Amino acid sequence: MIPNWLLQRAYLTPNRIAIYDETEAISFAELHERTAKRARQLVFLGVKKGDVVAILMKNSAHMVELIHALHYIGAIVLLQNVRLSIDEVKWQLEHSGARFVICDEPFPDERAIEWGEFAKLRERDEKWQTMYNLDDVSTIMYTSGTTGKPKGVMQTYGNHWWSAIGSALNLGLREDDCWLAAVPFFHVSGLSILIRSVIYGIGVYVMSSFDAKRVNELIFQQNITMMSAVSTMVQQMIQELKYPYPPSFRCMLVGGGPVPLPLLQSCAYWNIPVYQTYGMTETASQVATLSPDARHKHGSAGKPLFHMNVRIEKEGKPLNANEVGEIVVKGPSVMKGYWNNEQATAAVLKDGWLYTGDIGYMDDEGFLYVLDRRSDLIISGGENVYPAEIESVLLQHEAVKEAGVVGVADETWGQVPYAFVVLHDVTATEEQLKQFCMNKLAKYKVPKRIYIVDHLPRNAANKLMRHKLKNWINE
Amino acid sequence: MIPNWLLQRAYLTPNRIAIYDETEAISFAELHERTAKRARQLVFLGVKKGDVVAILMKNSAHMVELIHALHYIGAIVLLQNVRLSIDEVKWQLEHSGARFVICDEPFPDERAIEWGEFAKLRERDEKWQTMYNLDDVSTIMYTSGTTGKPKGVMQTYGNHWWSAIGSALNLGLREDDCWLAAVPFFHVSGLSILIRSVIYGIGVYVMSSFDAKRVNELIFQQNITMMSAVSTMVQQMIQELKYPYPPSFRCMLVGGGPVPLPLLQSCAYWNIPVYQTYGMTETASQVATLSPDARHKHGSAGKPLFHMNVRIEKEGKPLNANEVGEIVVKGPSVMKGYWNNEQATAAVLKDGWLYTGDIGYMDDEGFLYVLDRRSDLIISGGENVYPAEIESVLLQHEAVKEAGVVGVADETWGQVPYAFVVLHDVTATEEQLKQFCMNKLAKYKVPKRIYIVDHLPRNAANKLMRHKLKNWINE
Repeated sequence: MIPNWLLQRAYLTPNRIAIYDETEAISFAELHERTAKRARQLVFLGVKKGDVVAILMKNSAHMVELIHALHYIGAIVLLQNVRLSIDEVKWQLEHSGARFVICDEPFPDERAIEWGEFAKLRERDEKWQTMYNLDDVSTIMYTSGTTGKPKGVMQTYGNHWWSAIGSALNLGLREDDCWLAAVPFFHVSGLSILIRSVIYGIGVYVMSSFDAKRVNELIFQQNITMMSAVSTMVQQMIQELKYPYPPSFRCMLVGGGPVPLPLLQSCAYWNIPVYQTYGMTETASQVATLSPDARHKHGSAGKPLFHMNVRIEKEGKPLNANEVGEIVVKGPSVMKGYWNNEQATAAVLKDGWLYTGDIGYMDDEGFLYVLDRRSDLIISGGENVYPAEIESVLLQHEAVKEAGVVGVADETWGQVPYAFVVLHDVTATEEQLKQFCMNKLAKYKVPKRIYIVDHLPRNAANKLMRHKLKNWINE
Repeated sequence: MIPNWLLQRAYLTPNRIAIYDETEAISFAELHERTAKRARQLVFLGVKKGDVVAILMKNSAHMVELIHALHYIGAIVLLQNVRLSIDEVKWQLEHSGARFVICDEPFPDERAIEWGEFAKLRERDEKWQTMYNLDDVSTIMYTSGTTGKPKGVMQTYGNHWWSAIGSALNLGLREDDCWLAAVPFFHVSGLSILIRSVIYGIGVYVMSSFDAKRVNELIFQQNITMMSAVSTMVQQMIQELKYPYPPSFRCMLVGGGPVPLPLLQSCAYWNIPVYQTYGMTETASQVATLSPDARHKHGSAGKPLFHMNVRIEKEGKPLNANEVGEIVVKGPSVMKGYWNNEQATAAVLKDGWLYTGDIGYMDDEGFLYVLDRRSDLIISGGENVYPAEIESVLLQHEAVKEAGVVGVADETWGQVPYAFVVLHDVTATEEQLKQFCMNKLAKYKVPKRIYIVDHLPRNAANKLMRHKLKNWINE
């Protein structure tokens, strides 16, 4: 049990700035006032401790207020990706048992409340959670995974707490730090910035959507000291640069796979201190992080955070240095499990160890190298895309008999999904199939190309061999 | 469960310096090697997980090795004050069930092993505790308390962890920090520096005993950025100063009661950033800390650390701002209890709240003011002195019928104990009584004056009213 983070910050450091955006700077005391108002409105709406309430929003100061307000009440916040299709959002609402979804835009569901409408609600007083129980679930984020069915990752207060502390022990902590949030709060990379802000007592600059030019301006003008990004964002920022970054900017935390060497060299040239990190929704962000002074370790994700244990396993046995196997991790930032899905939980959590499904090795000095993301995961512009999910949608089309999806390298997005399908006797064009996907999937998940083929590569057990599909493209 | 701190540091930041002293600089990798050797020697000696092993030493690099080595094995470290009398040390060994006491000097007890002897022991291999269970007891420190019988404060790994984290969230954390340890490791103010070192990955400069001139030299030469002290130490350091402190020195953490205003003004003049703190052995150090920018709050101990809850109570009810009552605190750095003393534990720990016995209030902004330390506690040169303990020794003298002890202001030590005794028909001189105390008590506990009087001030219930004794001296 530790004190409610924002309440404690409003008490300890009321005058420090918590949130900056394009129009204002909000102190911790003011953020608390606004949060308390939102919490009273949620109480008026009937929200109670333990309820699941979804948020379907782009980054904004009021989204921050809502997240904290739900935690004041002790409700569980379901963070939903605004790029998901209507069907995908509804599936999550249904599966999580969410009572409401608060959204920026009109959304066709009886549980939906638009922000404009919410902001006008009356208020009802209630006692807040003054203490957080570290074992309680604070947030849920769905990830798709291998089966194609999304799984709701349960992140506890403790998961977020330890993640923030582990990060501070690695990156240090200064009273005048300010972290730029240009990644969405519905991803753990964004949410973890908010959490750090209230635990550390530092500012967050909230960007509603990434704009490379504006980010550079902010770094030069606004005393931004840290930022979270993926490689494509950094690439765009560098294209806009005229001068090297100021020394006040001390950390560019880059996730979503190793930064390509040429980009890393550009970063060094422009005085951008890149910390490459490996993490996932299931570990409430960073597991391991590589500091800029370890340049000779290019391609590595660095060493674990202080509170984490990482090892490489094969067939249940820990491997030695330089042997390739599955990356398994343990520590107090590992999720409690998947919401309402004991089977999926049991499949990945064993004796406290999380089986990530990612493949990699440790070198002699204990630096982690991630070779393949789990289950052929495709990372496209920082979004996780799972082949199995796209395949299952394609298979819903009457013409499709078999489907296989792989990630293909792309200059702008890092990777994009490509599909291969075998058709029944019914015919369908690539365009028709794409349109079909468009109706059911977030846009970034829709295959850029869909090739119609005779057969798919399968092994003796008839299992699809996706890595062979990659070769088909390279040929 | 989190990774063994020193092992993790030796893995994550092997080349950073962990320990400096007058002769060498020891990296975390080297400190681990030395610690592992000490641990193997302890195993050879027969030390096992859960054993209590006492250390009776002045600060030194090998004392640090021993503390970590005992934790590698999972033994509980009893830290003993080298200024205690032989009887006092033996009482603690007996009460704690310590198997050994490792000491700098010869000590007359069959459990004693001198360091020179220990260092020559053979080694036996064993598996180390690679994970620390935060609920396990890691250290014991005896404090005397109200009853006169010392109580063994059980500090868990979790207590130390949270204390270190709470301090970092308040004071910030920089990779190049180096903390000067001129206070003894057998006090929590000193031990907590060691713990921070391995958790933060920063250096500790180990001083075997405080030397004001040398401390100043180190601060000017050695990139010391932080230091723990009591007012008398700071006073002496200022007397030796010719130039203001360099800006690299960022924190002078001062415990043991409010810093007198003139001293605080001197500190401002010499560019010494004073953080006044309130803490105790039972909370694994800091509870609340006042930062230098809150000068208008002179006399306050500041606001709680992030993980702590502090409230003021009277007769079981929380009081409002500006009302005086008992200071009660709650949080994960509050001790597990007193070793083998359920009654004493139950008397101070209720529903997770620690009843400190200290008297104080919170102002409108939530700044804590400590008015009176618990049970007439006397703080003399940073050492806690309990009147009841001295009284019980005086009462053992055949001539003494009644005894009362109070603290009296002293320019050098802050406070010193004075005693009042009523004699039987047997006579005894002040000198004889002092000599009697000298044989049974640490020197700093021996009353500076012992007045022989007719009667002691008692209330209707015949309880000694120590505050009235104070008036007798002021008259």
